[in-house]
Amino acid sequence: MQEIIEPKILKGFRDSLPAEETRRLGIIRILQTVFEQFGFVPIDTPVLEYAEVLLGKGGGETDKQVYRFNDHGGRDVALRFDLTVPFARFMARNRAELTLPFKRYHIAKVFRGENTQKGRYREFFQCDFDIVGTDAPSADLDILLLMGRSLAALGVPAHTIRINHRGILNRLMEKLGLAGKGPEVLRIIDKLAKIGPDEVKRQLAETAGPAAVDPLLGFISLTGSNTEILTGMERIVGEQIPEIERLAWLTGALEEMGLASRYAVDPSITRGLDYYTGIVFETTLNDLPGIGSVCSGGRYDNLAGLYTKEYLPGVGASIGLDRLMAGLEELGSETAIRREPPVLITVLDDALFSDYHTAALKLREAGIPCEVYPERKKLPQQFKFAESRGIRHALIRGADEKAADRWNLKNLDTRESRDGITLDEVVRELKA
Amino acid sequence: MQEIIEPKILKGFRDSLPAEETRRLGIIRILQTVFEQFGFVPIDTPVLEYAEVLLGKGGGETDKQVYRFNDHGGRDVALRFDLTVPFARFMARNRAELTLPFKRYHIAKVFRGENTQKGRYREFFQCDFDIVGTDAPSADLDILLLMGRSLAALGVPAHTIRINHRGILNRLMEKLGLAGKGPEVLRIIDKLAKIGPDEVKRQLAETAGPAAVDPLLGFISLTGSNTEILTGMERIVGEQIPEIERLAWLTGALEEMGLASRYAVDPSITRGLDYYTGIVFETTLNDLPGIGSVCSGGRYDNLAGLYTKEYLPGVGASIGLDRLMAGLEELGSETAIRREPPVLITVLDDALFSDYHTAALKLREAGIPCEVYPERKKLPQQFKFAESRGIRHALIRGADEKAADRWNLKNLDTRESRDGITLDEVVRELKA
Repeated sequence: MQEIIEPKILKGFRDSLPAEETRRLGIIRILQTVFEQFGFVPIDTPVLEYAEVLLGKGGGETDKQVYRFNDHGGRDVALRFDLTVPFARFMARNRAELTLPFKRYHIAKVFRGENTQKGRYREFFQCDFDIVGTDAPSADLDILLLMGRSLAALGVPAHTIRINHRGILNRLMEKLGLAGKGPEVLRIIDKLAKIGPDEVKRQLAETAGPAAVDPLLGFISLTGSNTEILTGMERIVGEQIPEIERLAWLTGALEEMGLASRYAVDPSITRGLDYYTGIVFETTLNDLPGIGSVCSGGRYDNLAGLYTKEYLPGVGASIGLDRLMAGLEELGSETAIRREPPVLITVLDDALFSDYHTAALKLREAGIPCEVYPERKKLPQQFKFAESRGIRHALIRGADEKAADRWNLKNLDTRESRDGITLDEVVRELKA
Repeated sequence: MQEIIEPKILKGFRDSLPAEETRRLGIIRILQTVFEQFGFVPIDTPVLEYAEVLLGKGGGETDKQVYRFNDHGGRDVALRFDLTVPFARFMARNRAELTLPFKRYHIAKVFRGENTQKGRYREFFQCDFDIVGTDAPSADLDILLLMGRSLAALGVPAHTIRINHRGILNRLMEKLGLAGKGPEVLRIIDKLAKIGPDEVKRQLAETAGPAAVDPLLGFISLTGSNTEILTGMERIVGEQIPEIERLAWLTGALEEMGLASRYAVDPSITRGLDYYTGIVFETTLNDLPGIGSVCSGGRYDNLAGLYTKEYLPGVGASIGLDRLMAGLEELGSETAIRREPPVLITVLDDALFSDYHTAALKLREAGIPCEVYPERKKLPQQFKFAESRGIRHALIRGADEKAADRWNLKNLDTRESRDGITLDEVVRELKA
């Protein structure tokens, strides 16, 4: 007798059971439809790539999180850790076959060996969408509209898409003589919600000097309507600048389209550690701000500089599918993704299997999912199976019904039965 | 200036460009719908697992093909090389949460470091579906019907699902005193199409003895109607056996359902190297037999014996998605998977972006995919972009149309234009 191997899985990895996988596929299907409505096309890239290609010649801080090894041929390879780097490589490699502006989406698994904690996994889905090859403001608007439409199609409850322009803060820092200190200052500002304004003030004074504290803090604390915030920004920066104009164009267009209430200018959004250079955005669930942004992105001025000399500006965003799914579950809002359970065709008579399977094919043709119980058992046993699967209707035929060419349809919730009806009537009943 | 990294990818791996990825997603979407119509539910498992779990304590011939390495924690891990082993592990691990019989499907990437050749890749998609926890013949029929329905839904042209029962040949070999030589004999028989009957005869005589050649070769060469072949099997085996009865039950049911023409008993099907113990099947494209089976499977008597003492019989099949896609392309039959290109909303006037995007949202609400060109350019340039994307309709509005609240709709194929129509008329026109 063979020794049993424990069916364990790696820490940070998960099986996806039918209920969860059905939800995920439902979400993905909705997103695909929305993306295609916006003229976005899907791509895919390998899970495994040359480490040098994914990490750049030097490697860096990401390195420690990357699953990296030598393959059979001694090649230094790694599992993709995001979909942005492979997309940059993809654009450089396949540029000749693509028309710009190129709008792609990519929904796929990525891998990071980071420390596991609540809601953090080593294998998870990313969902990225980008418009590459144009720096037109209309493309920024496109991404914002697509974010809004995606979340609406998923039935995501009250949420706010927060917008800023990275360049405005950069201008302000230049004016304050802090041009070289951008990353440090951004890192402090990003901690506002976490450490509070007093500690931010202290750290800013230390890093940027006391004179910079008020304008910087004043800037990121601006509140009011979008117009009020934009006016406030101009006042603090002290002049009209194209970055504020661009943000004003965007919010103006959203206003004209009657969508302004869902999009809020928020000067505290910086996407500090990312590579964005223009518009940046984040999305928070109004009733669950604590889980962080479920959809973020921004404009970058050169996607694929590592791999090609062609200048490829773009704008894009990423939906955190796992975080969003967890958030929706916590809020109890999953209406968009429920799926109809199948009908169970019960087995009363071994001689009637062809009837059962033929009826099943006919129901499916009418768009009604169904399954045939695999063997003859007592009806209560078959009903018990149905209930454990969430099945609500059972179709029944024995020798008598066969002789009369009829079926009995039983509702397992109400225990009511429609007896002696034709298969066409069954279809009508189930479709009603 | 940074050095450019060559955007290369690993041998045996591929980028999936929009046209191909659209086809793949289309195929997957159709399959998901069919599987769900049959009451199958989706699952997923990690790409990365403990090597010991995927390979068994010993490892084996598969080993050399497996991507295996030590992760950061020094764990011996491997990329999944099929979906069967993870499914067995999944059943053992999650058994308590699943109701038997359990019908699952799983469409995902697997990885094998085998030598690359035409049509063989190191990363490819598998599509598996199984019914586990019952050895009822009706479950075999279910899988056969699901195979048939899946291929029909995909618009796969003329094809034949070939069925056999592995146990019949085993019985015959027992009778011939070859009980221990099963695998060797199967391996020779499997080469029939490749090396021809004479060489098979020679090898069989050598391995199984001269007396076994005629019955074995007679058996696998049986032809005729399903009934004729079943009668022939019984004659050669020399008695009524349950394995032939089971095969007869299946073909009888398919006959009663009017589906017999698509399912052929073929005694030469053995799935030699697989773990099947009962019914086995393969599917060949009638006009492209050379590419091999596009959908194969069979019944096994114990799925998860490596991981649990619970006996889990089952039946299942696997669609070779990449092979099927290549076959369909070669046969020029892809009608089921074509997708409507978007409508292009052209940009004539920078002041009208809100109009363009609002119209886009309205068209999408009506189910018409569309996109807004990102910036104002000469119309011929925008049309050229549309043509390169396969776009057939352009929606046009300048200041005059704005003033009249009208649009012009241009068919880029025929160059015909419907001018001065309302957006509702545009929708009706495009839906017609």
